[in-house]
Amino acid sequence: MNEFDLGIRCRRLIAMTDSSNTPGEMVSENMFLGIRESNIAAIEPYTEELWGRCKKRIDANHHVVLPGLINTHTHLAMTLFRGFEDDVPFHQWLFERILPMENELVDPDFVRVGTMLGAAESLRNGVTTINDMYFYANEIAQVCEQAGIRACVAQVWSNFPLPENKTLGTGNIVQFTERFQSLLSNWSHHSRITPTLGPHAPYTCDDDLFRAVVALSDKTGAPIHVHLSETKFEVEESLKKFSKTPVKRLADLNVLKRGTLCAHAIHCDEIDTEILRESGASVAYNPDSNLKLGSGIAPITNYLKHGIPVGLGTDGAASNNSLSIFGAMNIGAKLQKLSQHDTTAMTAPQALHAATLGGARALGLSDRIGSLEVGKRADLICIDFDQPHLQPINDPVSHLVYSATGGDVTHVICDGHIKVKDRVLQGINTAELYGKAEQWRKTLYAKLSNMKS
Amino acid sequence: MNEFDLGIRCRRLIAMTDSSNTPGEMVSENMFLGIRESNIAAIEPYTEELWGRCKKRIDANHHVVLPGLINTHTHLAMTLFRGFEDDVPFHQWLFERILPMENELVDPDFVRVGTMLGAAESLRNGVTTINDMYFYANEIAQVCEQAGIRACVAQVWSNFPLPENKTLGTGNIVQFTERFQSLLSNWSHHSRITPTLGPHAPYTCDDDLFRAVVALSDKTGAPIHVHLSETKFEVEESLKKFSKTPVKRLADLNVLKRGTLCAHAIHCDEIDTEILRESGASVAYNPDSNLKLGSGIAPITNYLKHGIPVGLGTDGAASNNSLSIFGAMNIGAKLQKLSQHDTTAMTAPQALHAATLGGARALGLSDRIGSLEVGKRADLICIDFDQPHLQPINDPVSHLVYSATGGDVTHVICDGHIKVKDRVLQGINTAELYGKAEQWRKTLYAKLSNMKS
Repeated sequence: MNEFDLGIRCRRLIAMTDSSNTPGEMVSENMFLGIRESNIAAIEPYTEELWGRCKKRIDANHHVVLPGLINTHTHLAMTLFRGFEDDVPFHQWLFERILPMENELVDPDFVRVGTMLGAAESLRNGVTTINDMYFYANEIAQVCEQAGIRACVAQVWSNFPLPENKTLGTGNIVQFTERFQSLLSNWSHHSRITPTLGPHAPYTCDDDLFRAVVALSDKTGAPIHVHLSETKFEVEESLKKFSKTPVKRLADLNVLKRGTLCAHAIHCDEIDTEILRESGASVAYNPDSNLKLGSGIAPITNYLKHGIPVGLGTDGAASNNSLSIFGAMNIGAKLQKLSQHDTTAMTAPQALHAATLGGARALGLSDRIGSLEVGKRADLICIDFDQPHLQPINDPVSHLVYSATGGDVTHVICDGHIKVKDRVLQGINTAELYGKAEQWRKTLYAKLSNMKS
Repeated sequence: MNEFDLGIRCRRLIAMTDSSNTPGEMVSENMFLGIRESNIAAIEPYTEELWGRCKKRIDANHHVVLPGLINTHTHLAMTLFRGFEDDVPFHQWLFERILPMENELVDPDFVRVGTMLGAAESLRNGVTTINDMYFYANEIAQVCEQAGIRACVAQVWSNFPLPENKTLGTGNIVQFTERFQSLLSNWSHHSRITPTLGPHAPYTCDDDLFRAVVALSDKTGAPIHVHLSETKFEVEESLKKFSKTPVKRLADLNVLKRGTLCAHAIHCDEIDTEILRESGASVAYNPDSNLKLGSGIAPITNYLKHGIPVGLGTDGAASNNSLSIFGAMNIGAKLQKLSQHDTTAMTAPQALHAATLGGARALGLSDRIGSLEVGKRADLICIDFDQPHLQPINDPVSHLVYSATGGDVTHVICDGHIKVKDRVLQGINTAELYGKAEQWRKTLYAKLSNMKS
């Protein structure tokens, strides 16, 4: 084994390993990273000898190389709703636009087109792992497999009718269980796809549903992905109905445990936070979506102090409206400074950690991704610093968080494969994809026009 | 005059004229825009005949064409401090890092290098007009002239020692007056450069200085550019010292008037707002900087309701850390939704307006820039929508505000000249520029190391 399938000459490398997490020690210069098959096989000071042993090469000579970014909460297929009826009152947007349209339109083809668009956008912008929850999980998994992105894919559960099952009744739990088991048997052995259980939220799932989810999770080891305490209203309703906060209720039902990813967790008090910490559950911080929907600012600084694993997320493109983890790092860190009245709250290294190793921990995948280490999967990205907004290079970590955007990503490697090369997506026919998205746009606006008339 | 110097075929055109400001009527499709010398000479439905009459052509066939973005408050040269000693407590950052370093380092060469880097970054990211305030105004103007950007350049005034004048004494006002008059005589006839008066802030300028500024402004017609009510502390100190808010104090001194640009205006109550409205002064909203420094969220929604002209700004790169007006639109609109608990606060069209025609009004330049109209200066940008994060095109205005970044800008025209072509800066030697910035970085960290030891 003298050869590398792919070698990268890294002007600067940010490994994000635990031992390199002291600011000032995060950046190594003039490094070589060698890949064999799906894995990182070498990280060493660059030499011509190493370079000579590579079948393919990427000369990231003006670049910073870092782990692929991780989006711990999204609904990729909602790219088809991007910018659709924005800026209207929240309840009108959700209950008179998005939900009725989902019920009218969402079918397997919608999910395939929207998910592929979301996967293309994610890869193009440096995201190599996404944690998705939407309808038709098997289609989502298929598309992510095809796109070459790493994905956790939830079988969604709910007591409400869903596009994939409009007549939920007493057989609900049986049906969801069957669907999940089919997802699991199709994908559990795939190197990039992780099936998960997605009880939608405390306000859409009853206790029996949660119990069934927990039983399945305990039996199969599948992680749980759930929305939690996103709005003040949700917490107030839970207090009225159950006399406990959503966090307490899910903890009592054993939903909160190591491997459970709670999306949002905005309206949590100190008792909730202590419950989260004890449970081992993790949090996905979605600053863009939380702002755009006016939901509030999650107490992330406090979660980090408690050692709760925190990842970054974009939520769906309808409420963001992009799937940029660069955006999430930038806005996310700054919002914590505002809400804490403290410019030291959520530093750039903390934000970059949440976007990489922190996200991997939050998803229970830190044994294979989140940092650049020999033996881990080769998920990594190259960012071109030879651009005016990233000069001078006073602090590469600060620049990645506060100045860079997804457009600065030149190369993306996922599972050892080159998915973006010189800013161009590989293996995805974008012209055809945009054409299909445009067809869905026409259908969407035709339905809207019917609905309004 | 049968020919156009430059013709642009616009798949979509957003003119931002007052008459096109109804959502739904903002976007025209398949248009032709013809330029002669510095001006827009034609905007018409595209025909092959018009296309045939152009000396040069840009085929913006997958693009949205809109007015060049306007940055109503920045300090371009501070790009050299980008990412420098971030995330430390605010007072330490400002008083133990930035200010001492400015006093130690800032000289005409620092300003030339930093300003050119800031101008390059601005143009590359679709900004064609900047409103700058820093030291060595004449150097700033020279660099902006050379870079080909449109610029308002302030002669800064202060009662505190400045890099360009470390021994301010009784001759203060005389010296500033002389400098301003020199700036004015050098640049007042230049088509792209507007000299302005920059009394730094209420907490750094005494009443006599403001009176001198107002007298000069009244005499010469030069606009005033001032920081105002950026922190709660500033307002409290003003109440203690002058028994009035900074807004009331400046109004009483006649500083607030049509043409005066107030940067920040975060901590303003209803009385302040009414004073601002009556005065005709305008506001620069700098959401990124305000967040990163934890200053607060300006009541922009309220200013817009009162008809106060509002532009967007980035502030300096040390507190942002980019000069992206796309970032400012995105974060700026979302922050208003959060602070107002209302998803309809600061809509995408309002944010785009603030970045274009609103900014032009705020700077008193709307007779020549801010919208695409025949007779106005040809300042415009092309944004490539053939990218996954801008698909499907449900709403181009929403996409520009919530999904696009500066990297999506392919062409920038300022005053009729092509400054960015296929994403590449024209007429600026970036390799040489980054080399000079790197030299300043080394000097900066050498000084820091001395200071810490």
